[in-house]
Amino acid sequence: MIFSLNQRKLIGLLITEGPQSRKALASKLHLTNAAVTVMTQSLIEEGFVVELGEIESGKVGRKETLIDLGIDKYVAIGMDVRSDYVNLSFTDIQGNLLEYKKIHHLEDAVEYVQRAIAKYPPFEEISVVCRGYKGLDFFDQTIEEVERLMSAARLPYRIVHNVSALAILHKFYHPMDSNFLLVKYGPGVGSAIMTNGQLLRNDRNRGSEFGHMLVDGSSPRTLEEEISYATVAQGIEESEVVDYLLSSKATLDFVMSKMAYCLVNAHVLLALEKIVIAGSLFVSDEAFASLKDKINKHQKSIQADDLVRISDYQQKEKKIGSIVTLYYHFLNL
Amino acid sequence: MIFSLNQRKLIGLLITEGPQSRKALASKLHLTNAAVTVMTQSLIEEGFVVELGEIESGKVGRKETLIDLGIDKYVAIGMDVRSDYVNLSFTDIQGNLLEYKKIHHLEDAVEYVQRAIAKYPPFEEISVVCRGYKGLDFFDQTIEEVERLMSAARLPYRIVHNVSALAILHKFYHPMDSNFLLVKYGPGVGSAIMTNGQLLRNDRNRGSEFGHMLVDGSSPRTLEEEISYATVAQGIEESEVVDYLLSSKATLDFVMSKMAYCLVNAHVLLALEKIVIAGSLFVSDEAFASLKDKINKHQKSIQADDLVRISDYQQKEKKIGSIVTLYYHFLNL
Repeated sequence: MIFSLNQRKLIGLLITEGPQSRKALASKLHLTNAAVTVMTQSLIEEGFVVELGEIESGKVGRKETLIDLGIDKYVAIGMDVRSDYVNLSFTDIQGNLLEYKKIHHLEDAVEYVQRAIAKYPPFEEISVVCRGYKGLDFFDQTIEEVERLMSAARLPYRIVHNVSALAILHKFYHPMDSNFLLVKYGPGVGSAIMTNGQLLRNDRNRGSEFGHMLVDGSSPRTLEEEISYATVAQGIEESEVVDYLLSSKATLDFVMSKMAYCLVNAHVLLALEKIVIAGSLFVSDEAFASLKDKINKHQKSIQADDLVRISDYQQKEKKIGSIVTLYYHFLNL
Repeated sequence: MIFSLNQRKLIGLLITEGPQSRKALASKLHLTNAAVTVMTQSLIEEGFVVELGEIESGKVGRKETLIDLGIDKYVAIGMDVRSDYVNLSFTDIQGNLLEYKKIHHLEDAVEYVQRAIAKYPPFEEISVVCRGYKGLDFFDQTIEEVERLMSAARLPYRIVHNVSALAILHKFYHPMDSNFLLVKYGPGVGSAIMTNGQLLRNDRNRGSEFGHMLVDGSSPRTLEEEISYATVAQGIEESEVVDYLLSSKATLDFVMSKMAYCLVNAHVLLALEKIVIAGSLFVSDEAFASLKDKINKHQKSIQADDLVRISDYQQKEKKIGSIVTLYYHFLNL
């Protein structure tokens, strides 16, 4: 089935807000009740939408039928390509996990998808989450391999940068958050900005580079140059850096205060409602508390609730690819 | 006449892109040719739109009629309330000045509008450009007076902050610029950000505060505290500050280097395509060159064309209120 733009938007509302009446949907979509009735009819026939029971509406004696998503007619597929394995996920239209696989080689993951799609309903496009953008020396190879393998397997795909994918994950689970900065620390400093519910990206296809902010007016050094793992934990294995930072208070203080300074500046410049912090260091309550403390020293106006960490819902990260797929199909319209 | 949303969008396209065929409009509005034909019919009958001659379209022998805006059926009215006078402007739907008045007292300006509207076609809403937001101590009084006088005169109005109005002015004359930061220097530091063609404003109704960025990680002082007229030209009359800055190279250098540092940080964070500089200091080529020079010292990646100054089209500033009116009616949809 090919969805119309309004059908996609309607499904998006059911994903983010849950079951509701046709009337409620019509008002949110700026459509007539009749138009929504027609639109939902074909969605119901195809099984993408189902009718639930009736609820009392505001007026006495008037009942309204709630509609919800049918969950067995659509599959969202996503891959999260990491340096030494691939997270492969299949979810239903609501984002519930249908199947998850951790596969060590990209080639095997693509082959697995090819075999798996036979048993699932039709899908549209597979999101592939990659580290780095095309054009960055370090990551080109992975992205080129993704492109080569997916094309050879004739699978439609979309490559999404992993930091943008984290911002999309946050947006999916917090649909009311429309203006926020996401910063991922470790091994470098990555960022993504949502304004008016959309990922910031300019006409030259560049996105936010929080890590390129200068931390000092009299030096050309960027935040990333100051606090990347390579700078603050020279010679230490990447997998050991978090432990090192947590054991060296002076280093942790240094990292957090540089980061806090740049976050405060981003906050006032962008009138941010929320700052979302990602990176495995922030699984540690101590590291997160230290960052909050440093921010408070600069500026009291960032409320405690405005600073959140993505590790609080890390369990959801294994289906990140599928969530990105749902986002682009039904929410980013 | 009450315009539909699509009619407003169609007029917006004619304002920013000029005359074009129904077919071209249909494709940009994502509508069928038939829908655009119906829409334009009523606009033509009412005189808001006129047919121009035919042009050859791509296909041999096929001719298309161009349509353009009718200019005598609509008036945009705007007021720009300054500390000692009011710029009052009336423009046609294309933004051509019909009438301009500089009036010393707000009360007289409102009275003038009341009398003037009798001779103009119907209007919708008057934009009133004010210094400062409601809630800031210093400017409350003016805004409250605007509200009192406009309400008493039963004139529909919208209050717009003067820095946001400058960003709207830039957007009106450069419709392709969708992601930019506008910074106005003097007497304080004001800013406005456009992302995806919309003014950035969060759910708490706060906008960008470039002037609140910290210029140093080890000090709580903001850019505005460092470079406002009150700080760098203490005891000097506001009207004399520009001359003072241009005569004191050390002070100018200081101001420009602090500003450049924050601009470079905003540029990387927001992936800005353009930075627009406003404020009477920048009428001076020397001041503008100094800012460019300081920016280059920090970062070569800001191209010369990415930095523009609004004083290059200062003549258009006297109709700023009317342009804001046109923007909200036909472009910000």
